Amino acid sequence: MNFSDRIQVTEVGPRDGFQNLKAFIPTEVKQSIIDTMAEVGVKTMEITSFVHPKAIPQMADAARIAAATLEKHPHLKAYALVPNLTGAHNAYTAGVRDVNYVISVSAAHNRANVNRTKEESLEDLKKIGEELPELHIKLSVATAFGCPFEGAVAEKDVFDLMEAALKRGVTEFALCDTIGVANPKQTGLLSKHALQAFPNTVIALHMHNTRGMGLANALAGIDAGLYIFETSVGGLGGCPFAPGAAGNTATEDLLNMAHAMGIKTGIDFEAYLRAVEIVKEKIDENLSSNMARACKYEHVF
Amino acid sequence: MNFSDRIQVTEVGPRDGFQNLKAFIPTEVKQSIIDTMAEVGVKTMEITSFVHPKAIPQMADAARIAAATLEKHPHLKAYALVPNLTGAHNAYTAGVRDVNYVISVSAAHNRANVNRTKEESLEDLKKIGEELPELHIKLSVATAFGCPFEGAVAEKDVFDLMEAALKRGVTEFALCDTIGVANPKQTGLLSKHALQAFPNTVIALHMHNTRGMGLANALAGIDAGLYIFETSVGGLGGCPFAPGAAGNTATEDLLNMAHAMGIKTGIDFEAYLRAVEIVKEKIDENLSSNMARACKYEHVF
Repeated sequence: MNFSDRIQVTEVGPRDGFQNLKAFIPTEVKQSIIDTMAEVGVKTMEITSFVHPKAIPQMADAARIAAATLEKHPHLKAYALVPNLTGAHNAYTAGVRDVNYVISVSAAHNRANVNRTKEESLEDLKKIGEELPELHIKLSVATAFGCPFEGAVAEKDVFDLMEAALKRGVTEFALCDTIGVANPKQTGLLSKHALQAFPNTVIALHMHNTRGMGLANALAGIDAGLYIFETSVGGLGGCPFAPGAAGNTATEDLLNMAHAMGIKTGIDFEAYLRAVEIVKEKIDENLSSNMARACKYEHVF
Repeated sequence: MNFSDRIQVTEVGPRDGFQNLKAFIPTEVKQSIIDTMAEVGVKTMEITSFVHPKAIPQMADAARIAAATLEKHPHLKAYALVPNLTGAHNAYTAGVRDVNYVISVSAAHNRANVNRTKEESLEDLKKIGEELPELHIKLSVATAFGCPFEGAVAEKDVFDLMEAALKRGVTEFALCDTIGVANPKQTGLLSKHALQAFPNTVIALHMHNTRGMGLANALAGIDAGLYIFETSVGGLGGCPFAPGAAGNTATEDLLNMAHAMGIKTGIDFEAYLRAVEIVKEKIDENLSSNMARACKYEHVF
């Protein structure tokens, strides 16, 4: 296997994690978690989502979170998710310049997720680029490894979507295992082929841990040459259809594995655990993260 | 990465899983789980442990379990753990011919686990070979990746122990990540070096999932050329010092990953889940296994 010396961990908890929680998290709690993570070495983070508050009430404080975060952490690359042109305008008005736009490879999931066809999503992507040229857009390629409605997803369909986005100016992508079905062989192959097919772009891997393969998939991605991995504090997020199922791959689990392997992340692991503690205290004491539950043997390692 | 076409999964739940549970599991429940697993394609299994019932009351029914299992499943390679010469004699008397003998690489863990020095353990190993030559002995090399008391464990110490056992007739080993601290880089390197250093032996990998790296470590072991992987039904087992922490790597999680990657195991996954269901119903409804909690999207995959 090939192991790099360094990876970049993009924290998506404040967006992908929080948006899956029904009970509203007070804005100051969200902010304290974001602040803690930004202060311990996290350099890229998805901080909120500019969706309609009726669709996801949890994200009603997007503008406040964005304004405060951008002011406090000028060196943080802070992404906000935007599901459409209106969201992009709202994000822009709030000061955001890095956005995460989502299109699913499978038509059925795109309909369920953003209530439109893939063509309509691509049309909005084009408009965002035209109307807000200052925005840097990352495209999250959702259901790239499998869809809850359509099942298996073809590599060609993944690359056709990336190609269409590339033509509309997108040069950064996240291959998203939206429902945690990817296996390491598939992850390694898709990652390798994507790097070959889209050489002048940035490609991240977004992992869920539904079937326990999150870290194994990260390993396959590292082996294939990927550099950026998207994970969530405490393993928050994931699958609204299965209470108790593991969510996103936990940032602290990936940090622990990477550091144990001698792979640098620039993040202070011990200090990062303070953010996990806040999540445990204020949001959910039963986290799916392994490091949040691990044996307390750390003193000897 | 190198992926083989087939691996062998050794089920250790009835031994490593059950022994960590305080409340006595009725013998017929244990037997029904063993029977179910043997019937769906599991070919190698650790079925019980011939320890003193005062040390582990859960294993007081070892002779009954062994006799029934050997009679019902003549083609199953059924191991029993024996901690010492007395245990080996008791196992032999019960009809067992495949035993799992454990020595820890770290002296402190060997003392805590079997209450003797490594030299005393090796002396007993020699006597077992002399007094019971019909026994086939697998040596579980405990704390091969790290010790809760002594911390890091040197590769040389692992290989010295294996060499000493080889001189006493042992040709089968399990490299045991007893407390789930191994990382994939370490696992890959130790596996590769062990295969090189002990070419005419059988070497398995025994994984725990305490820090979520169980499947990633299996992947590294497969890549290094290992063929046998030891896992536990439901992820039972693991760390008696940390209630709620993940235990052994779950057999169903490894089966799911292997099959998704096109790696055969000879085990019928769907049928195996019946054993997981019995464990959930009769023993513990909150299993650490990911597949026991996964989203119910299986119909489309």
